Amino acid sequence: MNEVMLTADNYTLVYNALSFGTAVMLGAFVYFLTQINSVAKAYRSAIAASAVVVGIAGYHYFRIWSGFAEGELNEGYRYADWLITVPLLVIELLIVLGVANELRKKLMIRLVPATVAMIALGYPGEISTDNGTKWLFWALAMIPFLYILWELSGQLRAAASRESGPVARAIKNATLVLLVTWCVYPIAYLFPVFDSSSEGLEVLRQVGYTVADITAKALYGLMILGIAKARTAAEE
Amino acid sequence: MNEVMLTADNYTLVYNALSFGTAVMLGAFVYFLTQINSVAKAYRSAIAASAVVVGIAGYHYFRIWSGFAEGELNEGYRYADWLITVPLLVIELLIVLGVANELRKKLMIRLVPATVAMIALGYPGEISTDNGTKWLFWALAMIPFLYILWELSGQLRAAASRESGPVARAIKNATLVLLVTWCVYPIAYLFPVFDSSSEGLEVLRQVGYTVADITAKALYGLMILGIAKARTAAEE
Repeated sequence: MNEVMLTADNYTLVYNALSFGTAVMLGAFVYFLTQINSVAKAYRSAIAASAVVVGIAGYHYFRIWSGFAEGELNEGYRYADWLITVPLLVIELLIVLGVANELRKKLMIRLVPATVAMIALGYPGEISTDNGTKWLFWALAMIPFLYILWELSGQLRAAASRESGPVARAIKNATLVLLVTWCVYPIAYLFPVFDSSSEGLEVLRQVGYTVADITAKALYGLMILGIAKARTAAEE
Repeated sequence: MNEVMLTADNYTLVYNALSFGTAVMLGAFVYFLTQINSVAKAYRSAIAASAVVVGIAGYHYFRIWSGFAEGELNEGYRYADWLITVPLLVIELLIVLGVANELRKKLMIRLVPATVAMIALGYPGEISTDNGTKWLFWALAMIPFLYILWELSGQLRAAASRESGPVARAIKNATLVLLVTWCVYPIAYLFPVFDSSSEGLEVLRQVGYTVADITAKALYGLMILGIAKARTAAEE
């Protein structure tokens, strides 16, 4: 954990935040599992993917938290988690947006490797203690990051203008959640560059990643479920 | 745990109460999961939310109990738990009360932040050892607490008068459970103010929180299920 020593209060804060993350993810996992059959057939795989995402995240939060309780915070878990869950988050969005099959395949072929590149490029900077290395890999990871956000927000805009009423509103809510939460990551990533010895920044970074993960996975999953339910109601 | 040393008997009592809490919550979790499809579609997400609430509470009781077994009672778990579960308890009630969609959204926008404020304001007083601080945050947390109870009991009364027969009776039962159990919390909170060195009060507080959690989550979930089942029968 960047070799920052934490006071007892800050230790408790990070400890409780990680436990809170575990509980939210596992709670969302159960909820999404119960909701799969509440939407039309075409969208069920998206809700199942939401469940898988928060289930995997719950496992990783449990691992991060257990490690932290034993005195070591393994950032590798975050990257292992993102490597599995971020492509799934992209795929479930494309399913509920009602993107035509042909285009969806094309988008997946471009976006899934982009998410893998983004996370793989972020990792060397995350574990490095050299600021130059951190900046370099931050900048490299930002290329696929910006490409993914640009492509997804284009699809979201197109889908919102194809639809009307509750479906369009649900898509706009999902867009907001996606754009706001994704921007937390590149900022939290850079905290150690600004001051790697700052305890406050390190605590803020861990709590920030946790809150962003909860929003980007559990809350975003609720938004995906909202789109799927609105579509199901509109189709009935 | 307020630096109170417990005798072996009292230690066993708290230990068993926490284990009992874990078992009841996990038992209720399984039961609510099996009941989701026994009610009409409109109420299924409320029963799923009940399951999530007691599932998350079961996780937290397990964590509190494990910590206590190792010699440390982390009150942070209670607050992390309430932060997730109390908004869900409010949401599930609004779903089964049959509050019209527009009004429900308005109520959620007011009530969910109020629950978060209530719990966030309670925490600094809970962990403080200073009586002045405890009183201050107790009083601050009581503002959203009373607002939530006032708003919910108004909705409960309105719903009971809209309905008749078994539905009205089920709503009245839920009202009773809600009002009685919620009042345990602000009282148990204040025990250390009256006598922070009293072993009896500390034991009563831990057992009291546990009993209140079981009633406010598992028994209340049964009441919610009762309303949903009565409505399903009335609609068929």
